[in-house]
Amino acid sequence: MHRYRMIVEYDGAPYVGWQRQDNGPSVQGAIEKAIFSASGETVSIRGAGRTDSGVHAMGQVIHADLAREWAPFKLQNALNAHLKLAGERVAILEVLAANEFFDARFSAERRHYLYRIITRRAPLAIEAGKAWWVPKALDHEAMHAAAQTLVGKHDFSTFRSAHCQANSPIRTLDRLDVTRSGELIEIRATAQSFLHNQIRSFAGTLKLAGEGKWTPEDVRAALDARDRKACGPVAPPDGLYFMQVDYPAIIVDRRKPMEAGNDDDDLS
Amino acid sequence: MHRYRMIVEYDGAPYVGWQRQDNGPSVQGAIEKAIFSASGETVSIRGAGRTDSGVHAMGQVIHADLAREWAPFKLQNALNAHLKLAGERVAILEVLAANEFFDARFSAERRHYLYRIITRRAPLAIEAGKAWWVPKALDHEAMHAAAQTLVGKHDFSTFRSAHCQANSPIRTLDRLDVTRSGELIEIRATAQSFLHNQIRSFAGTLKLAGEGKWTPEDVRAALDARDRKACGPVAPPDGLYFMQVDYPAIIVDRRKPMEAGNDDDDLS
Repeated sequence: MHRYRMIVEYDGAPYVGWQRQDNGPSVQGAIEKAIFSASGETVSIRGAGRTDSGVHAMGQVIHADLAREWAPFKLQNALNAHLKLAGERVAILEVLAANEFFDARFSAERRHYLYRIITRRAPLAIEAGKAWWVPKALDHEAMHAAAQTLVGKHDFSTFRSAHCQANSPIRTLDRLDVTRSGELIEIRATAQSFLHNQIRSFAGTLKLAGEGKWTPEDVRAALDARDRKACGPVAPPDGLYFMQVDYPAIIVDRRKPMEAGNDDDDLS
Repeated sequence: MHRYRMIVEYDGAPYVGWQRQDNGPSVQGAIEKAIFSASGETVSIRGAGRTDSGVHAMGQVIHADLAREWAPFKLQNALNAHLKLAGERVAILEVLAANEFFDARFSAERRHYLYRIITRRAPLAIEAGKAWWVPKALDHEAMHAAAQTLVGKHDFSTFRSAHCQANSPIRTLDRLDVTRSGELIEIRATAQSFLHNQIRSFAGTLKLAGEGKWTPEDVRAALDARDRKACGPVAPPDGLYFMQVDYPAIIVDRRKPMEAGNDDDDLS
């Protein structure tokens, strides 16, 4: 068996999400089909994050085990050719040979997401489906201040979907930064893993802060409530991008067996 | 009659182009329909540039004459609501009252276009249709150097579609700059007006310079040939964006009748 690590970009709009499901096309299914078309091998791949329907990725990471050994760039070109032929909105940005200890999901040390909001009177034409359209200006500094009350290790029950399958609502949020450039507001979130709908719940709640409806204390109180009903509205998937996954160098460098990592799934 | 000037954004992919035509949906038709839905008035609008099928706009400018007087922001909101309802990929970014001397096409003093190229091995997933995908790196400095041979007043027959309807192939190109930021190469072109396919012909030719196949002297020789056959391949519409139109302040400020302007159409 030969294991490959791949970095994947996709437009989430046409998919039911990352995970293979019965109710429609998935990103996982699209890549598995391309692997079959390219190699004749039926494989089950694993992704670092199970993104929801409509959520995009610029840096999803997956691993796949193939019986045949490939030059990585040839595998990349073959998969991209088959993905394009099939009309998929998925591209393989990079393929690297990986060792048997590398697991796209369980070896992940840190995950980075971006949430994009465009604030302007007019609906989005060119960026339709690629950002959350908010027709009024938001105070990004108030959003950033409110976001800081969420950073750290907390019980995030408030910001977790009722469908979340994670064992524990406790997560450590390393970073939640809000910046603005003209009409574009960007929320950048980093943690080892996230709960289902966690970042979209953050974005919806921070919008209330940006409108002046919630203070940082209100956000803190919502967090402390540990109750889904205390959450602001959940922001749409259109603005969410899975950007990057960090792995311990010790795994990626193929020197030693996995040491770090976690067994929590990432469900944003 | 009340004249309104509007700034318009659109995703060109679903349209046969700016101009109303029998062979499919046009941006002009979409806006005229929205005006009818909002006001009951059947109008014929005029745009600053007749963009081709697949070409996008972030700053197309149009004017429309309506019998009823509207508060500009109410007209904007009504048109955007109807465009969205109809599923159009068109948004009205701004509406301003204009005087009778303002003409979106004939008053235009300067038009600004952007052409986007993304150079990377993998096809585009998120940006599919929004840039020209070139699988190999390009030397943007060589492209910029070659571009400078095109700046100025020239007979641009080489860079003009066989279907171009303009009276004269002579244009004055004010600016043709090539810059790079990572995988993204941007070509910015400014002139009072452009010939049909002129910027896409520039982009295709400059790509040859970026690949090291053409020197600036080759580009100059192609210009001097004044022959369509001397042109490089025409770049796809996906990368082209109509960004901005400048008008003389004297017209926009409603002080005096039109003085400047030209009677050439813009056909990029």
